[in-house]
Amino acid sequence: MFLEKIKSPGLAHLSYVIGAGGQAAVIDPRRDIEVYEEIAAANNARISCIFETHRNEDLVSGAGLLAERTGATVYHGPNAAGEVRYAETARDGQEVQLGDLRLKVLETPGHTDDSISIAVYDNASGKEAVAVFTGDALFIGDVGRTDFYPERAEEVAGLLYDSLQRILALGDQAIMLPAHGAGSVCGSGMADREFSTLGHERLNNPRLQITGRDEFIKVKVAEHHYQPPYFRLMEALNLSGTDPMDPNPAALGVEDIKSLGEQVLRVDVRSAEAYASAHLPDSLCVPEEMIPAFAGWLIKPEQRLVLIAENAEHAWQAARHLGRIGFDRVEGYLAGIMDWVTAGEPFASVDFVDTATVEQRLNKPSVDWQLLDVRGLEEVETQRMPEAIHVYVGELPDKLKELDSNKAWTVMCGSGQRAAIAASVLERGGYNNVDVYLGSMTAWQQQKHAA
Amino acid sequence: MFLEKIKSPGLAHLSYVIGAGGQAAVIDPRRDIEVYEEIAAANNARISCIFETHRNEDLVSGAGLLAERTGATVYHGPNAAGEVRYAETARDGQEVQLGDLRLKVLETPGHTDDSISIAVYDNASGKEAVAVFTGDALFIGDVGRTDFYPERAEEVAGLLYDSLQRILALGDQAIMLPAHGAGSVCGSGMADREFSTLGHERLNNPRLQITGRDEFIKVKVAEHHYQPPYFRLMEALNLSGTDPMDPNPAALGVEDIKSLGEQVLRVDVRSAEAYASAHLPDSLCVPEEMIPAFAGWLIKPEQRLVLIAENAEHAWQAARHLGRIGFDRVEGYLAGIMDWVTAGEPFASVDFVDTATVEQRLNKPSVDWQLLDVRGLEEVETQRMPEAIHVYVGELPDKLKELDSNKAWTVMCGSGQRAAIAASVLERGGYNNVDVYLGSMTAWQQQKHAA
Amino acid sequence: MFLEKIKSPGLAHLSYVIGAGGQAAVIDPRRDIEVYEEIAAANNARISCIFETHRNEDLVSGAGLLAERTGATVYHGPNAAGEVRYAETARDGQEVQLGDLRLKVLETPGHTDDSISIAVYDNASGKEAVAVFTGDALFIGDVGRTDFYPERAEEVAGLLYDSLQRILALGDQAIMLPAHGAGSVCGSGMADREFSTLGHERLNNPRLQITGRDEFIKVKVAEHHYQPPYFRLMEALNLSGTDPMDPNPAALGVEDIKSLGEQVLRVDVRSAEAYASAHLPDSLCVPEEMIPAFAGWLIKPEQRLVLIAENAEHAWQAARHLGRIGFDRVEGYLAGIMDWVTAGEPFASVDFVDTATVEQRLNKPSVDWQLLDVRGLEEVETQRMPEAIHVYVGELPDKLKELDSNKAWTVMCGSGQRAAIAASVLERGGYNNVDVYLGSMTAWQQQKHAA
Amino acid sequence: MFLEKIKSPGLAHLSYVIGAGGQAAVIDPRRDIEVYEEIAAANNARISCIFETHRNEDLVSGAGLLAERTGATVYHGPNAAGEVRYAETARDGQEVQLGDLRLKVLETPGHTDDSISIAVYDNASGKEAVAVFTGDALFIGDVGRTDFYPERAEEVAGLLYDSLQRILALGDQAIMLPAHGAGSVCGSGMADREFSTLGHERLNNPRLQITGRDEFIKVKVAEHHYQPPYFRLMEALNLSGTDPMDPNPAALGVEDIKSLGEQVLRVDVRSAEAYASAHLPDSLCVPEEMIPAFAGWLIKPEQRLVLIAENAEHAWQAARHLGRIGFDRVEGYLAGIMDWVTAGEPFASVDFVDTATVEQRLNKPSVDWQLLDVRGLEEVETQRMPEAIHVYVGELPDKLKELDSNKAWTVMCGSGQRAAIAASVLERGGYNNVDVYLGSMTAWQQQKHAA
Repeated sequence: MFLEKIKSPGLAHLSYVIGAGGQAAVIDPRRDIEVYEEIAAANNARISCIFETHRNEDLVSGAGLLAERTGATVYHGPNAAGEVRYAETARDGQEVQLGDLRLKVLETPGHTDDSISIAVYDNASGKEAVAVFTGDALFIGDVGRTDFYPERAEEVAGLLYDSLQRILALGDQAIMLPAHGAGSVCGSGMADREFSTLGHERLNNPRLQITGRDEFIKVKVAEHHYQPPYFRLMEALNLSGTDPMDPNPAALGVEDIKSLGEQVLRVDVRSAEAYASAHLPDSLCVPEEMIPAFAGWLIKPEQRLVLIAENAEHAWQAARHLGRIGFDRVEGYLAGIMDWVTAGEPFASVDFVDTATVEQRLNKPSVDWQLLDVRGLEEVETQRMPEAIHVYVGELPDKLKELDSNKAWTVMCGSGQRAAIAASVLERGGYNNVDVYLGSMTAWQQQKHAA
Repeated sequence: MFLEKIKSPGLAHLSYVIGAGGQAAVIDPRRDIEVYEEIAAANNARISCIFETHRNEDLVSGAGLLAERTGATVYHGPNAAGEVRYAETARDGQEVQLGDLRLKVLETPGHTDDSISIAVYDNASGKEAVAVFTGDALFIGDVGRTDFYPERAEEVAGLLYDSLQRILALGDQAIMLPAHGAGSVCGSGMADREFSTLGHERLNNPRLQITGRDEFIKVKVAEHHYQPPYFRLMEALNLSGTDPMDPNPAALGVEDIKSLGEQVLRVDVRSAEAYASAHLPDSLCVPEEMIPAFAGWLIKPEQRLVLIAENAEHAWQAARHLGRIGFDRVEGYLAGIMDWVTAGEPFASVDFVDTATVEQRLNKPSVDWQLLDVRGLEEVETQRMPEAIHVYVGELPDKLKELDSNKAWTVMCGSGQRAAIAASVLERGGYNNVDVYLGSMTAWQQQKHAA
Repeated sequence: MFLEKIKSPGLAHLSYVIGAGGQAAVIDPRRDIEVYEEIAAANNARISCIFETHRNEDLVSGAGLLAERTGATVYHGPNAAGEVRYAETARDGQEVQLGDLRLKVLETPGHTDDSISIAVYDNASGKEAVAVFTGDALFIGDVGRTDFYPERAEEVAGLLYDSLQRILALGDQAIMLPAHGAGSVCGSGMADREFSTLGHERLNNPRLQITGRDEFIKVKVAEHHYQPPYFRLMEALNLSGTDPMDPNPAALGVEDIKSLGEQVLRVDVRSAEAYASAHLPDSLCVPEEMIPAFAGWLIKPEQRLVLIAENAEHAWQAARHLGRIGFDRVEGYLAGIMDWVTAGEPFASVDFVDTATVEQRLNKPSVDWQLLDVRGLEEVETQRMPEAIHVYVGELPDKLKELDSNKAWTVMCGSGQRAAIAASVLERGGYNNVDVYLGSMTAWQQQKHAA
Repeated sequence: MFLEKIKSPGLAHLSYVIGAGGQAAVIDPRRDIEVYEEIAAANNARISCIFETHRNEDLVSGAGLLAERTGATVYHGPNAAGEVRYAETARDGQEVQLGDLRLKVLETPGHTDDSISIAVYDNASGKEAVAVFTGDALFIGDVGRTDFYPERAEEVAGLLYDSLQRILALGDQAIMLPAHGAGSVCGSGMADREFSTLGHERLNNPRLQITGRDEFIKVKVAEHHYQPPYFRLMEALNLSGTDPMDPNPAALGVEDIKSLGEQVLRVDVRSAEAYASAHLPDSLCVPEEMIPAFAGWLIKPEQRLVLIAENAEHAWQAARHLGRIGFDRVEGYLAGIMDWVTAGEPFASVDFVDTATVEQRLNKPSVDWQLLDVRGLEEVETQRMPEAIHVYVGELPDKLKELDSNKAWTVMCGSGQRAAIAASVLERGGYNNVDVYLGSMTAWQQQKHAA
């Protein structure tokens, strides 16, 4: 009886392979599915069923593809939005046996109407669930977001409350296996810790300490969450099924890049530090590990792309991140910028400034200079620099017209990484007097603390 | 806050790396320690402390080696047997902080006097332990053996009982992280399932269902366990510390093998199937994955060895198994037997026989033929073929003189694998009419069931 | 300017990636093409062209697949057999530039009509070819076979003679890069050495020492070569192009195997040693590394298969070997035979016998016993045991009726490996008194030598 | 008969494993020797001998370590400088047999007095050498440097001339296997091509086109080569032998770095781009892949170091580069600079400027601004910007006092990478008005060309 967790970084997505007696189940597979077949094989098991805990809105499901390759059955909760082409509808109480392992469906709507949890029993050891896959209903340190049906906000928050009671009723002893960890766009309160049980969450998860259904609904309805525009694409793909990922992008030369022209967006997936010192003019900065969280805001799915990456392996990893959220139009990659620069092509830079510089500027306010905070609303509400105006990095492209391009801008966020992304959006928008506060809010607080 | 489990197959030994805030602790490291440094690095953490849950008797500890390389402190429970040269003595209630992670020592004697458990707390999430490293005190489905102090049998069983109460008092919500899984020589009742919690064990672990301290002591004292002779060596090495493992053994040719002569034991680590069809005369059959469980019975630590392996990688894996239990004298390996055979050198074989053949022989009993069951006592007591005499495979070398070498022998076990090992011991002892019942007890039962 | 050789074991097929200036060419890609993309990427190059030195008859070309994924152009020599769907026709003197690298086509017919060689020039270093891809025209220690057009035997041998002169005219300094190494079915005289130059071959290749065109033709026409029946399939696929390889086969259980029934051939890809001691009745023995050479004789392309393999990785490797020669119908695999045996299912065995036993039997000849030599004709002509009758292993299925199934048979070959394959063919044909002379001709000679 | 080439990037060092008949020889092993054992094992061979083509001055030899682990004999040419502790003296004509392979020593002094070449013969194929290991005597496109005995300059150049004749006498057909490729500090004229033969070099290697011994001596004596100071350490270690490399450095936190203080040099091994945008004040910039060429100039062997690296794997690779040239005092690494920056610690930056900016400055010359070219003498002599003063990057620390720290400095080289290193040397020397011309000479020429 084996259990393996697969982390997809950036998305902070967790999927699982569990098996016994030569059979395996996969829970919430991502689009690049090789890893599941490898794990099953290493345990000499055949993948015979696949569960989707809900229709994912933040990533492309690989359930259909994996079913095609393995012949496994896909189970998906009852889905009002329409038929999931590649899945059977799983109903409360439905069970699957894999050797001594028994997987039992609990309908746990709230996050979405089709959300299910899957309780895990060991027939050789007692009647209590030994673990439970909680999907996006219950996380370590948080619960699922309930903002996807704005017109039914209170109803679905209440549904989630009820679902959580059902899950907790499985008992303190059950190990918790959620679909996301800290860093996911599916919840901001998730713990940094990667392991927990229903018992530990019952006692300590802040959302489970709220007293009463009504109070819970009130808290949930008051939450603010961002919805990147690519969520719409995911919802469509995860009904209809998807193609396998495209091949790895190929190396391009400087002339190739130039001849592709301006319709092809240059996405610089190197570190923010490398982007800052020198980059192709008009390129968009999205460091590779930040692709899953920000590409869906800043790039349109139909947009053709070239990547500026460290090297082939780096470009391939970036393309994999893009493919996991349905962005397939990568034409190739440039390995580093030295070929570009030594070919005599122009490059651009953006300065990093430190706390002392920002402080100095704040002490001599000017109408020609403005601090721009691109963090999320929740962060800004927790602590802010009063002089900063706030536009969330993901919404920046749509709000550019509200910002005066004749001013000098210093962009900040939590640490400076998202600020670098935002600076590239500004540069592309024609702002030519932009720098980035490296360290940003975190350094600012350290400095104040120390002072 | 990360947690990784490292399985050492064969030994069914489990060690762990846990960390937070750039620091990591290793629990019960084995002798080949590279894996711990790799895991820590992948999490950008430095190994700052190492815990031994007890002085291991079944494998060489790598704690001293790892401490030397990393500068980490080793913690070991209070040890009546003498000082663990490379460790500090850990006392009940002692704590180590790693970022938000807190590790707290519980003295939990019984299996050994120096047994400790380590409770895991997340300072950011409540006061209850979120997990506990239980060493050899508590396993999934079983508890630690208490046969190492025969003259204090009742006392130490009682100590274990008390220790288990202390562990369970941490609460149902705590995830259980034991030092062994199913297949270990440290307990025969361990579950096949690799994950559990104190709550699930409290409810379902058979040994935790026994009512009362006295009854528990009675049950434990009545248990039978084997102690391979190499345990003595482990106990010595794990007080004094050990050297790093030897280099990988080198390829040898047929002439090299011959010139090494008879003092160098030929250990055939290929599959039992390969051994059966053709092997170097007088070689000992110990399939690679069975080395951790059986080499310690059949080979003396000071014995020089050559391996007959599939290829280099296979030989290296076999040497790693040997090194983990302190057997370092591997002179090299022969890759396959075809070089040997095509050089015109003699080879030997042993036949596999099936259920029908065994049944036929049983139906026509003969004084010249005998069935030999080499399973463990516990297995034999559960179910046996009445016609078989019983000698445990590990004790066979010492009991050869009790068996008539003029008879024809058919060796059996649970499946035929240990029987092949035993057949090689018989062949080396001069028995030249031996075959192996492939399928053995398991096939026999299937057959009877079907019939 | 980089050059990498990719060996496909079993087939002893050699393909190459060569590149400069950010571009790469692939020579004679096999069907599983990931490796070429990885090598190009590691050198930050894009694959812009692909050469086929001839229409391969012994493996499925990956040229069409690779072209689809990369957009590269495929070049293939002028082809009387019809159009190669995915390729352009390459003509003598045609050149491709990759940075400072220049690849120039030489038409070198003889082995096939469409055979080309590709000379390699470094524009930065002189006018002489620095290397040459010789396809199946010239090997290290041998030249291409010329038996594919029996009705034009002398003509094509003469064509090859002329082609070799053209190749040698490139100069002694040119490094030789052939499409096969020792062990290929495309030539029996290839050297064990993996590196050579035109100069070294001119001086030492036995076939290049033959004086005069007429003598060369005479020698070539007199050669004997086997043509496995799957060559026909390769020729067809390598005109039309092929699909990507199938997914890795999945683990099957004992019940799965049984329910697939007898129409699905059980192919035991474990070692001959493992097969010999115990195997599923009626399974065909083809050890994994021998698949490329023998599966094409013994299995029909349309035949559905299950593999008996060591484990998943082993089964996948076997399926890759099968896929490279166009055999795609693998339904799954059984990992080892212990599940089968312990389920109480019947198994079969075949004995290995040694030189002494064979000698003993030869000394007391019997009409009821026969020695069967399954080596190739060339080997038999070089040295044989006069008592043995000869049937080539590949032709055994078709000649079974010529062998008396009432006799006892001992099968031999060069070492015993092919004999094990042959023994499985006999077993499947109803011969139930068969054993294998392990060591075979090689051991026999050693023995005689020693005597 | 197998042959594998192992490249050590940065050093552009080439070592080899060659073998036959179950035995292998290693030529010029580097200090991290695992790769040789792995290659030998993959070919089922035991390493029985090791050749050093000369006493390496640019890297630490692993010959002694490899000999200890394998029992192999080390062969080293006759060495006037003293005894190589771990080696036997190889003499002209001396031979080693490995299966059908024959390795034969040629004394080929000139580069060093103890230089040998090793001709490779295949006993199964003719009398001519099939390949030759040429060490630092003959490279692809260049010959060895002869500046190590300044007082014997003409003598040793003449010795090399004679040695080259001896090597060429092996015949055009011999494949050339040198100890370095393009990028090595051991010669500036090496071709980018990685494969050649004696024939191709005889016809095309510029140094082999020089007519006559006297003219050859004249050319060689006139050459200029740099000798990094660490060469002295290598010469000592490669007489006495060395220890294995240190363990991989551990992750450090910000507080660790600070508490190590100023005596511990901070070496930033990230890309020049990352360094430029933000770095720890007073850190030395040596991008990881440039360590082998520049660390030996800028760091003293006894200096304690911390690395600023991308992550653990990157730091480990950097430490491996350092260890290969004998720099062992790495105390640990910081993974990226974000922890540093967000802790509120100060950071520094250096600007990259483009061709237009440099041109603009050149058009309005100022006594307060100076262009500094840090390329090698040979490069500067080929083409220079007349306004630049020249100091080689490796000699910059010693010549800092000659440069006015009150001026503004723009540093240039071939592309900007060495200029970034030089900028860090200047920053550490107190120059606070420094920027880097990214693109440098290469971009300048492109621009001029285009204009």
